[in-house]
This record gives sequence, C-alpha cells and structure tokens, in this order.
Amino acid sequence: MATVATVEALIQAGGPHVAGLMEELETRLAVLAGSHGPELARHGGTTIAAGGKRLRPLLVFLSAGEAPDARPGSLRAAAAVELVHSATLVHDDVLDRGTLRRGRPTVVAAAGRQMATAAGDFLFSRAFVELAEGGRPDAVAVLADACLGLSEGELMQRADAWDPTVSVERYERRCELKTARLFEAACRLGALEGAGPERELGEFGRRIVLDVSGPAERTGKPRGADLLDGTVTLPLILAREREPGLATIDLRAVGEAEVAALCDRIAATGALDAARSRALGIVAEAKAGLPDLPARQRAALELVADGVVERFA
Amino acid sequence: MATVATVEALIQAGGPHVAGLMEELETRLAVLAGSHGPELARHGGTTIAAGGKRLRPLLVFLSAGEAPDARPGSLRAAAAVELVHSATLVHDDVLDRGTLRRGRPTVVAAAGRQMATAAGDFLFSRAFVELAEGGRPDAVAVLADACLGLSEGELMQRADAWDPTVSVERYERRCELKTARLFEAACRLGALEGAGPERELGEFGRRIVLDVSGPAERTGKPRGADLLDGTVTLPLILAREREPGLATIDLRAVGEAEVAALCDRIAATGALDAARSRALGIVAEAKAGLPDLPARQRAALELVADGVVERFA
Repeated sequence: MATVATVEALIQAGGPHVAGLMEELETRLAVLAGSHGPELARHGGTTIAAGGKRLRPLLVFLSAGEAPDARPGSLRAAAAVELVHSATLVHDDVLDRGTLRRGRPTVVAAAGRQMATAAGDFLFSRAFVELAEGGRPDAVAVLADACLGLSEGELMQRADAWDPTVSVERYERRCELKTARLFEAACRLGALEGAGPERELGEFGRRIVLDVSGPAERTGKPRGADLLDGTVTLPLILAREREPGLATIDLRAVGEAEVAALCDRIAATGALDAARSRALGIVAEAKAGLPDLPARQRAALELVADGVVERFA
Repeated sequence: MATVATVEALIQAGGPHVAGLMEELETRLAVLAGSHGPELARHGGTTIAAGGKRLRPLLVFLSAGEAPDARPGSLRAAAAVELVHSATLVHDDVLDRGTLRRGRPTVVAAAGRQMATAAGDFLFSRAFVELAEGGRPDAVAVLADACLGLSEGELMQRADAWDPTVSVERYERRCELKTARLFEAACRLGALEGAGPERELGEFGRRIVLDVSGPAERTGKPRGADLLDGTVTLPLILAREREPGLATIDLRAVGEAEVAALCDRIAATGALDAARSRALGIVAEAKAGLPDLPARQRAALELVADGVVERFA
C-alpha cells in the first residue's frame, strides 16, 4: 500500500470534518511559514511546505473528535506539533549532515549549519507562540514536556552512538523520548481540545510509534543509514542476542562498503521479523487500550495504528 | 567599577527581597540542571552553573516589585528567561565555534556540536515547561515571542554577515531581535507577576540593551572578535559614515593579523565615542520613560540602566 494513499485513506476514515481541518492546517502552516521575512520563508518555510504525511496533526484531529468548538484549538495544536516536528527535522539534518529530505535539499545543505540551527530554533519558538495564543497553559505544558523529551532523547542518542551493547530497555527509552512523546502529545492535545480521555488517548499515541527499520522504499532512508551514523536500532539489538558475534562489531569501522553485508547479517538472524512481530503486538495493545469513543473516531484511530505498522514494518 | 561589584550593588539596591529571590533562583537553576540525567547535568548544567550576571532574572524581580504573592511566579519567570538565555549561549557557541565562555570550555568544545545543539534545545524546552507549570498563558506568550525574536535575529545576523554596508536601521532591528527582546520579556514577565505596568516596563527593558563594543576587559570578548566572524557592529557602521573607505573593506579578508589595525582605524574616526553618546542618550530616555513606581523599585531599575552603560560603553 503506498504511503500517500494510506494517509488519504486515514483522512477519509476520519470523516469530512477531518478532511476540512487538514486543509485548513495547510493554509495555516503556509501563512506561518511566509510571515516572518524572506530568510525564514526560504528555509523554515521549505521544510514545512515539503510536508510529509502530517501524521501528528491528523492524530490531533482524530483525538479531538467532532465537536465543533474543538476546531480552533485543534488547529492551533496541530500546527504547533507539526512546527515542532519540522524543527526537529531541521536540527536532525544539521546533526546528521543530511543533504536530502523528502527529495529536496535540506536546510543545512542549502543554507549552511548556522542558518539551519537558527531556522530550527525559530520553528520551535513559533510552535509555542501558536499554542500560547490559544490561552491554554495545560496545552503548552504538554507540548513543552514533549519537546523536553525530544532533546533528552537526542542527548541519549549521542551518548549511545556507536555502542553496539545498548540494551533493549535503553533503546526503548530513547525511542519513547525521541519519537513517542510527540505522538503522545498530539493525542493528548487533541483530547484536551475535544474534552476526551486525555490519558488513554495519550497512551495510544505513545504506543503506535514504531522505530522498526522498514524497506528503504517506504521509509525513504537508505538501507543501513542509521548504522553508518552510529545509531544502534532494534534489529541490531535483537540480532545481537541471536548472533553474539554482532555484539563485538566496531560500528565506527563500518563504512559504505561494509554496510550492506552487515544489514544482510542482521536480516539472516531473523531479527527483522522479530522486530516486526514485536511492533504488531504493541499496536494490537494500543488498539485494545483505546477508550470508549464514537465509532468513526475509533475506527479511524485504529486505521492509523495499522497504517503505521504497514509503513514501517 | 568592576562588573561583579556592580551586580551586587544592583541586588542590594533592590532590597532584601530581591537578594532572597536571587538566592532562591540559584537553587532552582541548580535543581533544574541536575534533574535530567547525567548528560544534561554535564552539558546544559555547566552552562547554567557558569552563571554570568543573571541580569535578566534581576530585571524580572525588579519589575515585579515587592508584593509577596508575586514571588512564586517571578521565580518561575526568572528561571525561564535565564534558561532561554543559556540556550542561546550554547547555540551561539555552536554557530561561532566558541571554545571558551566565562573562562570555561563551551559545551560545543567539551562535547561536540551534536551534544551542544541538543543541550540548547533542551534548555529552551525546559524554559517553557517551567513557565507553563505556572499556568499563565500570557507569560508563555511573552517568552515565546521573545524566543521567536532571538531566532529571527540570528537568521538576520547570518544573512547580513560580512556585509559592511548594513544600514543603522537594519543593525538596530537585529539588536532588538537578538538581545533587547529578551530583556523586554524579563521586564514584562515581572510586571505580569507583580501586576505592574507591563507595557512601560517592557519598553524600559527593551531600551537599556546596548550592543556597543566596550573594552575587552569588561565585555569579556577579545577586541575585534565580532569583525572576525563577520558581524558588523555599530562602531563600524558609524565609522563608515565618517571614513567612507571603510565601507569598501572586504571583511572576509580581515584576519587575526589585520583586525587590531581595523579596530584602531574605526576608533580613530571617533565612532566609539559616538556609539557611547548614543547609548547614553537611549538609557536616559529609558529612565525618563519609567512609570510611577515605589521609590526603591525605581531607583534600582535606574541603577541597572546606568550599570549596563558602565559595562559596555
């Protein structure tokens, strides 16, 4: 299933009000990107505009439900989480020296490290301006907390880089901080606006995030890219338990020439299947843990959970 | 007058409640720096601990006045502005490849670019968590807006780097964004907590920020450091009007060997005196524009304004 079709299907499953909100979001993001001078329009703006799947805003809208008075707040929250997500992409590219993102040059490649760092800071700040204008300190606290997690996770990733002995627990904690927290925040922010069950929806968001390396044509990342920049991912951790020789590999010595063979060695242990089974199990739990919700809202959220597995695993 | 003595004098002028708050702030910052794992304690923590003058927190406290119920909110706001300030220092050092700050190795020098970028992001986020917990969306909006200015100013500085023809107006706008906005925010946040005149105190904070290059022993920056990294400051802009030959200088060709001579050439035009007079004029305006305030509060704020000129000019 192609990713674009999946996201469109998810929007459709959410109903016409979700489709309307997703369109309003694009307009709002375009205004935000264009209203702070030419430098920002060029750099921050391209990152926002390049888009991606808008999965986090979609989760805000789906978690908020269909109450009309939740619309303005949901839109703010959705724009804010997407701005934070864009900020992390811009900074990640600075850290990883990424040159292409979604087929376009990254900010750091086009404008240099300094401009990209400042553009990322700008996008972070803009997210908080957006949310603060809604006048909900609880919403700001949720987003700030998620951002804190993002940077803690980033620090942890840097501390663990090149270390093939990282434990599954530490790996999971890193994923939670780096990725799951913002998904959780998206669901909680939606729940806050729609007066829905914040804790349960947040838990759902936290669980459906999978950091399982999928095939390059779906994730958009070249095979083995994580290993080349020293990031130890779940398949390697699981493979290491099956083939202990993998634990002694010096990742710093793995270059472009060796990485395909290492990926094959990991795959040969069955670790990719194990990671996929694990992901399916967690997503099943996430779906089972969904609270009482209107049928359409529940069905759409379940589809998101399935879609995420489909995409990554 | 030595800088440290000046700050102590300022605290004393604010009265015993300000001295008490400044101590509580140190405790609070130490707790914040130490409560998010070893990586952060090492990197974010050292930047916060290295301290500096805590001029922004002081402005929060002085702007809040002496009402006891303003204490908890002022402390939060003071910690938040200092965290934002620390975040910008960490990121600035990444951008400028700074190796020493306040006599200690910078985070980027000690731990690398990646750790420093993440540590800066962490400090930003922690500031918003701190403020959001106080439950005041108006305060969050003030801080977020200042952060937006900081990053817009940073983008502008990068866009203008190495351009000796930058106008005074554009230079002033950059200073306002990069520095004055956070001083303004400190005063406004204090005023919000103390129910004082937010607009007028904010205006005061905005005006007392001077970006006039003072002697190296007071500013802590080596002479000509700005010119070497391409940052065109007011003395050069003013000197250019007096000696048009300076407008055609290629700053990229100015190295360590040439910079002292360029500084001398700028000084010879009288531009430093002109910049100083300008600063004194603006500070006088800032003091004249102070609203009706209790005598001690007003006197302490006036001393801050004078102290800033003393330090820089």
